[in-house]
Amino acid sequence: MPAVLKTLGAKAAADLDKDLMSDEGGYSIDQLMELAGLSVSQAIYKAHPPNSGKRILLACGPGNNGGDGLVAARHLYHLGYEPIVYYPRPVHKPIYDGLVKQLHGLHIKFDDRENFKAIAQDSDLIVDALFGFSFQPPVREPFDKAIEVMQSGVKPVLAVDTPSSWHVDDGPQDEGLGSKYQPDYLISLTAAKPNVKHYKGKRHFIGGRFLGKDVADKYGLSIPDYQGLDQIAEVPVDIKVEKL
Amino acid sequence: MPAVLKTLGAKAAADLDKDLMSDEGGYSIDQLMELAGLSVSQAIYKAHPPNSGKRILLACGPGNNGGDGLVAARHLYHLGYEPIVYYPRPVHKPIYDGLVKQLHGLHIKFDDRENFKAIAQDSDLIVDALFGFSFQPPVREPFDKAIEVMQSGVKPVLAVDTPSSWHVDDGPQDEGLGSKYQPDYLISLTAAKPNVKHYKGKRHFIGGRFLGKDVADKYGLSIPDYQGLDQIAEVPVDIKVEKL
Repeated sequence: MPAVLKTLGAKAAADLDKDLMSDEGGYSIDQLMELAGLSVSQAIYKAHPPNSGKRILLACGPGNNGGDGLVAARHLYHLGYEPIVYYPRPVHKPIYDGLVKQLHGLHIKFDDRENFKAIAQDSDLIVDALFGFSFQPPVREPFDKAIEVMQSGVKPVLAVDTPSSWHVDDGPQDEGLGSKYQPDYLISLTAAKPNVKHYKGKRHFIGGRFLGKDVADKYGLSIPDYQGLDQIAEVPVDIKVEKL
Repeated sequence: MPAVLKTLGAKAAADLDKDLMSDEGGYSIDQLMELAGLSVSQAIYKAHPPNSGKRILLACGPGNNGGDGLVAARHLYHLGYEPIVYYPRPVHKPIYDGLVKQLHGLHIKFDDRENFKAIAQDSDLIVDALFGFSFQPPVREPFDKAIEVMQSGVKPVLAVDTPSSWHVDDGPQDEGLGSKYQPDYLISLTAAKPNVKHYKGKRHFIGGRFLGKDVADKYGLSIPDYQGLDQIAEVPVDIKVEKL
């Protein structure tokens, strides 16, 4: 891992995804989301192994970030965890519907109670898969309450790609909802986002062991130093951050 | 791992795949093939780690078995190998076309020379992803030559799901093409096939860490004892085999 962490803003991150799924790139959303969710499950396994508590609450939003959470829930089950899925605003596209059916087939618990705090208190770790790099305020209900609970520190939190409610470049809001939100763990997907410079958690992982040299070069990224069969690499939390 | 290895015949294996991809099962072929190919790459990593020789020749047939090989080629690249893809009869469906584009994006070498022996001699390991459990004889050209070369022992071979040209129940043909074919390594996908009782290789892996208890019970399968983050589990090669 180089001494500087290169990051991708919202526009570049969206362009990179488009490149991967272009006619030339050849990826389907199913493939990319499968690998993203798998890498999320591996970050959880490293940061919070099963003997730290198996009840993982996956707070899933209505977009791709939520989809990554649904995939992660399935892999967590197979890794021996007991995932609980909070997914109060399901999106009825084939990929999301399919992921939900897969979870039902494993009898994974869905809990969409209004009282997110009560759901959180029944868990050992919360996975923040509400919003990703394309998030635009305001946070609509019921997700505002989930962010408040995650901010409260009632349980440790692992954020997927970017802490929900944070601006992709500027980090936490100056005031109001999520302004003091700091997850304990973070997994950046494909590349870190500029807001990582505001992240003060314990561990930072990068997922996306499918990025080729051409695409990395086009976006000025470095490919992380993946070890063995890992789909994730760990980055020092005190690394210097550079926006591309 | 139980003392008896339960296996699935061609009809049951096809039915299980149909269940997974049914409206109720919720899986897409993209997701299942991604996980299958990933597990193939992990079996290669265990059986033939990069320091045993990085040039992996993936012999890919025109069906799902070949698709698993194409996915594995991509993961092998990211694991530090130098995959070479033999794919002389490409099928122009979106998933296969997409997988090929992904490999082109990584500048992975395709070698479809007629002289499969020459291609094999330039490699350290051959992956037999020609035909899977639904294979029906005869083997058409140019795949017949590939099977002859794999049978010749010129290089070690890892077979994907079932050694090509073998009958899913009865194993190698009594005489003629492939009658003496014995791969060195085998990875069974989702479940072993009955022909595994004829397998005399060194190591046997099972992939498919997505099989839930309900589906396993319906088909009388046991879920392998996966370790850590592995997508594969190893099975003793001398285990008793039971056809369901």
